[in-house]
Amino acid sequence: MLEPIRNQMKSLSFDQAKEKDRADGLASKRREFLLPENIIYLDGNSLGPLTKTAARRVKEVTNEEWGIGLIRSWNDSGWVNLPKQVGEKIAPLLGVKAKNVIMADSTSVNLFKVLSVACSINPRRKRIITEIKNFPTDNYIIEGVTGQLNKDFEITYLNEPEDIIPSIDESVAVVVLTHINYKNGKMLDISKITKAAHKAGAFIIWDLAHSAGAVPLELDNCKVDFAVGCSYKYLNGGPGAPGYLYVADRHIGKFNQPLTGWFAHKSPFAFKPQYEPAEDIKQYLCGTPPVLSSIALDAALDVWADVDLKNVRKKSLELTDYFIELVEKRCDDPALNLITPKDYQSRGSQVSFSYAEGGYAVMSALIEDGVIGDFRAPDILRFGFAPLYTSFTEVWLAVDKLKTILETRSWDQPGYHNKKLVT
Amino acid sequence: MLEPIRNQMKSLSFDQAKEKDRADGLASKRREFLLPENIIYLDGNSLGPLTKTAARRVKEVTNEEWGIGLIRSWNDSGWVNLPKQVGEKIAPLLGVKAKNVIMADSTSVNLFKVLSVACSINPRRKRIITEIKNFPTDNYIIEGVTGQLNKDFEITYLNEPEDIIPSIDESVAVVVLTHINYKNGKMLDISKITKAAHKAGAFIIWDLAHSAGAVPLELDNCKVDFAVGCSYKYLNGGPGAPGYLYVADRHIGKFNQPLTGWFAHKSPFAFKPQYEPAEDIKQYLCGTPPVLSSIALDAALDVWADVDLKNVRKKSLELTDYFIELVEKRCDDPALNLITPKDYQSRGSQVSFSYAEGGYAVMSALIEDGVIGDFRAPDILRFGFAPLYTSFTEVWLAVDKLKTILETRSWDQPGYHNKKLVT
Repeated sequence: MLEPIRNQMKSLSFDQAKEKDRADGLASKRREFLLPENIIYLDGNSLGPLTKTAARRVKEVTNEEWGIGLIRSWNDSGWVNLPKQVGEKIAPLLGVKAKNVIMADSTSVNLFKVLSVACSINPRRKRIITEIKNFPTDNYIIEGVTGQLNKDFEITYLNEPEDIIPSIDESVAVVVLTHINYKNGKMLDISKITKAAHKAGAFIIWDLAHSAGAVPLELDNCKVDFAVGCSYKYLNGGPGAPGYLYVADRHIGKFNQPLTGWFAHKSPFAFKPQYEPAEDIKQYLCGTPPVLSSIALDAALDVWADVDLKNVRKKSLELTDYFIELVEKRCDDPALNLITPKDYQSRGSQVSFSYAEGGYAVMSALIEDGVIGDFRAPDILRFGFAPLYTSFTEVWLAVDKLKTILETRSWDQPGYHNKKLVT
Repeated sequence: MLEPIRNQMKSLSFDQAKEKDRADGLASKRREFLLPENIIYLDGNSLGPLTKTAARRVKEVTNEEWGIGLIRSWNDSGWVNLPKQVGEKIAPLLGVKAKNVIMADSTSVNLFKVLSVACSINPRRKRIITEIKNFPTDNYIIEGVTGQLNKDFEITYLNEPEDIIPSIDESVAVVVLTHINYKNGKMLDISKITKAAHKAGAFIIWDLAHSAGAVPLELDNCKVDFAVGCSYKYLNGGPGAPGYLYVADRHIGKFNQPLTGWFAHKSPFAFKPQYEPAEDIKQYLCGTPPVLSSIALDAALDVWADVDLKNVRKKSLELTDYFIELVEKRCDDPALNLITPKDYQSRGSQVSFSYAEGGYAVMSALIEDGVIGDFRAPDILRFGFAPLYTSFTEVWLAVDKLKTILETRSWDQPGYHNKKLVT
């Protein structure tokens, strides 16, 4: 009986965390990031950190390309190609061809575009399926699109992921889902659900906000119709960096999206009076892209060039396994409950715990103590693990601080209950 | 008879240009801009230059607020307030109250929002009026909105500005116009046309892309319904900086725009499953704003804090008068024709000439020679005059170079005909 106990003790020690870091094949990637000292950053699922390349490029583009090159830089520095160029860098992270992805606008605006198209392909069907726990902006946009199109649409809000496949029948026009839930980190099965949608003649849109850069994706193999995503989380594109979208080959050039801005025109710089959509993925652009924000994203994506996503997934599961194990074994507080699935098929790169007694105050205390995660109402502590820069010793230290905060109940002060938290 | 000739000679001399600069009350504003040496920049109507404050703020926000503050900066550095804060800085340039303007998305996306709303207020009317020579993206978006709403809409494309008022009758739902034409710089009368629209029970949307920062505006006094605009031209917000929009008090909170992203929600961070629009101008937001691009704009707007727009307009007319006079008197080339109105009521801050023999090549040669204007098909040379940084000696030197290029026909080489031009 001594052996398991010794193993368990070892698995709880800081030395073991250091050992794990030494064995980590991705450890060197951290050098490409500019992380602040004395902070353990477990919120890359909300806003990824600055990379060295992004810092350098933003400076260059601001002072030289804009400051000196001025208008000439649209061509000379290739600004005009940024939407395609960024799309091409994101494509391998989604498991799709470069020509099917483009950077544009925001996730919300992009969802408006692809949902409008998906509804127009299936004009006789008037039912949209989503989860009530989907990230709110997605559900708001479903209301926006269906309200704009006409009032006959019915939106079905499912309560549990298990309800999705049984709910898809031949009345459904489009299924709109987020692959990894923003609150509990639960991951859906893209392949199975996409198949079920197609079997019923419905189209599917996946929101990959918490997926790209966190887990490998195979949209092409899964025959996904459309996808949208956010670039400022695991892709480290910077605050409010532009979104991206994916459209399957079979839908490109056949259906028109309604946000018909000039960048979506076949020949934007011919300034023709009538709209003629581009025949490729550029048809999903709208207005002029925000160059400085796009450049940070473009540069941040370079960290993925030499990364095998299998190794990212492997480390992600190790980090989240380790975090869960440490919390469960070291933080003896019955109010703390894991709400992220333990099974690998259903886990993204985020771990969430509910803490009904005062989740908000616990997260405030943790942040004050240098461990940045975030909070989601009513009582959820979210922790994101980014395999490119999160270390095992950070995981250990974060849990150690959480343990102390919970044991001493240092969180239970008015200051922590009222403090304005990160968003 | 000697007197007029001497006056004329004086008005053509470089010394006179220098005199004008010495008398220029706005001359000191140029120090706030980081303009490249050896370049005469007459393309601020396309992309305004970098300001010192913007360069400093972009660096700070990238390296400190993002790099060190990370997610905390959404609150601690006020990123979350940027859309309102930028709107408040733009409001005085439009002659409206701070609470009626907000920064959001792009001009195209914003036009989609306000046109959707305007159409919904007037649901029985199915006619939209615009100019065939309107900036293309505006007309494309009209196609996009009306196509999305239903197929019964009729879009009337007017050929000449004189046709606008006579064409507005009680069949018209919305009039969508750009105040200052992007090609010829011709300015419309906001007050008169808005009155005519309202008299017929139509709503009006003004695109102010070439107006804000170039000419004083009085949208509130003119009872304009909606306006959209671009911030990277005379507002110097940087390449692809976010757009802005204006909504009159009487329309705010009464009608819902369809791009219902989470930033448009009453309580975005309450993460409620159903959409409830904000009751103020924030209802016109959509997704997360691109912070780096927004910061450059926010900082660039500070140059307007101590500027009286009357002086801007006065200098703008002096600069454009002077440019026209110098070209007409010094460039003796019958192919060169002024297409911008000379009368002040119809002139913005841009002067355009057609040059049928080879406008593209002439602009290429000018750019090669350090004078940056731009070209619009089929034969238009555009020159923008930004009173905050354009000097009279620059105007003189630009015309001097144009004169030489035309006289020597140095533009008529294959290199200039084929060169990839600025966009």
